Amino acid sequence: MHVINIKSVVESVGDGVSDMAVGDHVVPIFNGECRECKHCKSERTNLCDKFRVNPFKSAMTSDEKCRFRGKDGNPIYHFLNTSTFSEYTVLDSGCAVKIDPQAPLQKMILLSCGVTTGLGAVWNTANVQAGATVAVFGLGAVGLAVVEGARSRGASRIIGVDINPDKLINGKAIGITEFINPKDLDKPVHEKISEITGGGVDYSFECAGNLDVLREAFLSTHDGWGFTVILGVHPTPRLLPIHPMELFNGRRIVGSVFGDFKGKSQLPQFVDQCIKGMVKLDGFISHEMPFVKINEAMKLLADGKSLRCLLSL
Amino acid sequence: MHVINIKSVVESVGDGVSDMAVGDHVVPIFNGECRECKHCKSERTNLCDKFRVNPFKSAMTSDEKCRFRGKDGNPIYHFLNTSTFSEYTVLDSGCAVKIDPQAPLQKMILLSCGVTTGLGAVWNTANVQAGATVAVFGLGAVGLAVVEGARSRGASRIIGVDINPDKLINGKAIGITEFINPKDLDKPVHEKISEITGGGVDYSFECAGNLDVLREAFLSTHDGWGFTVILGVHPTPRLLPIHPMELFNGRRIVGSVFGDFKGKSQLPQFVDQCIKGMVKLDGFISHEMPFVKINEAMKLLADGKSLRCLLSL
Repeated sequence: MHVINIKSVVESVGDGVSDMAVGDHVVPIFNGECRECKHCKSERTNLCDKFRVNPFKSAMTSDEKCRFRGKDGNPIYHFLNTSTFSEYTVLDSGCAVKIDPQAPLQKMILLSCGVTTGLGAVWNTANVQAGATVAVFGLGAVGLAVVEGARSRGASRIIGVDINPDKLINGKAIGITEFINPKDLDKPVHEKISEITGGGVDYSFECAGNLDVLREAFLSTHDGWGFTVILGVHPTPRLLPIHPMELFNGRRIVGSVFGDFKGKSQLPQFVDQCIKGMVKLDGFISHEMPFVKINEAMKLLADGKSLRCLLSL
Repeated sequence: MHVINIKSVVESVGDGVSDMAVGDHVVPIFNGECRECKHCKSERTNLCDKFRVNPFKSAMTSDEKCRFRGKDGNPIYHFLNTSTFSEYTVLDSGCAVKIDPQAPLQKMILLSCGVTTGLGAVWNTANVQAGATVAVFGLGAVGLAVVEGARSRGASRIIGVDINPDKLINGKAIGITEFINPKDLDKPVHEKISEITGGGVDYSFECAGNLDVLREAFLSTHDGWGFTVILGVHPTPRLLPIHPMELFNGRRIVGSVFGDFKGKSQLPQFVDQCIKGMVKLDGFISHEMPFVKINEAMKLLADGKSLRCLLSL
């Protein structure tokens, strides 16, 4: 059974776990890597057969049992392979990445989801090159990670789009070169972006989880070669707001999960790049609180007032 | 003014035409290449600013005048940059490709549209590699050109899908390895394809111009890396029948125009490859008729009874 108890530091390991030991520093990942399935053996995807996102999965993959119980003895179900809203958790070793113990753990936890997702979308999914132009729709933690990804690749222009004017401050700190608040415009955002860029940006990233925004992001790219990456989650019955004939204008649109990083194989190198300063993680943790204030932290996030809040005991 | 009169053989050239002369053999192309615009100068697209498909364009690009008149003296509008339903035509030199005079002109005319579109979608848009698995939805001339593209690239399996059982004969002749008639199934095509391929094909091509078929083509690819190319024209108010969250399964879908070939720059080499036998054009011309029977030829095409009909005087 591949099970370990962890809280960023491994507390114990179950039978069959050979790639980590008690005391190792780890980053839990919601999009795991079993390294044995057809998908893990392919270079073309990071969607593991066993440990991909499945909102209906509510227990451990190895034996389909729950590891948590409430005070009343009833099971508390697992969430996204990691279940990290707790002091200790139990997860499959395929969902924990052993990292360099020199790396600052409090920042590395950012790599569990949002920062890896945004940065990887730029590096791996879109493969943005130096000099390219980029627009980022939604400047939460994922959007800002896209900004940092574009900055680290040497993008010539990074246009941040958000209806919350407060997002300008973090955006500028991380690297946006221009800010557009759609509420300040008398025309659609894509028309404004087309005007100021001579036809549209090379790449756009949708990090808002809104289909109308998604369409603006799609149209904001240059016809002929525009490339839009969807990062936002869209729990809606609506279909993609794109007509099939619009794909004949040479614009492409793709989804990206966990930044197309294979977690176990590639995150250790990503951690090294963070240590060396190629990627700047300062600014992504906007708040710190004791664990008992978790509901307050969630409210700040929902209200768009925090990026990531670090909870400690 | 860049104008020439042609009928596969150049009859005269206008002022400013420097890359062809009277007597040259040419292939007219609906998706031209001016070689001067931002798009033509980019390696990322074949959609020329001046000579791309524009169904609202009804005259010459150079001076926006008509070159044809009916018996009553009224203008006859131009069609898709080429207007080749006539003995002689006049077109911009950006829409005529000079080719090797050794090439058999009667076959080379196939490169004006369908064969280039299908073959290029495999070679350029999808870049199918040897050993890959492919499904082709709709076995008309474009679909069969996809089959020939996949065969020439060494695809391991080429699954043809069509509701017309007569299409099996041409499909087999050109290279399909399996044929599926959706009418013979008691389940959706994508489920059948998933069963027989262990999860889906690597690439699918939609050549039917039907959105329900498009969705089947999309779902017929393997999750994680499936790549669907749209070639069919979809004159419908319906949007893409794909939910945004479905793009997070790693399947991609893109459009392709004229096989992503830059006509003037790349078709001469394509012609050479046809001469050398890398691409087989036998079988694509299913009928030959005198020009006066053009309406009969169009009916055969609409009824799915011909692939391409060569009209001669």
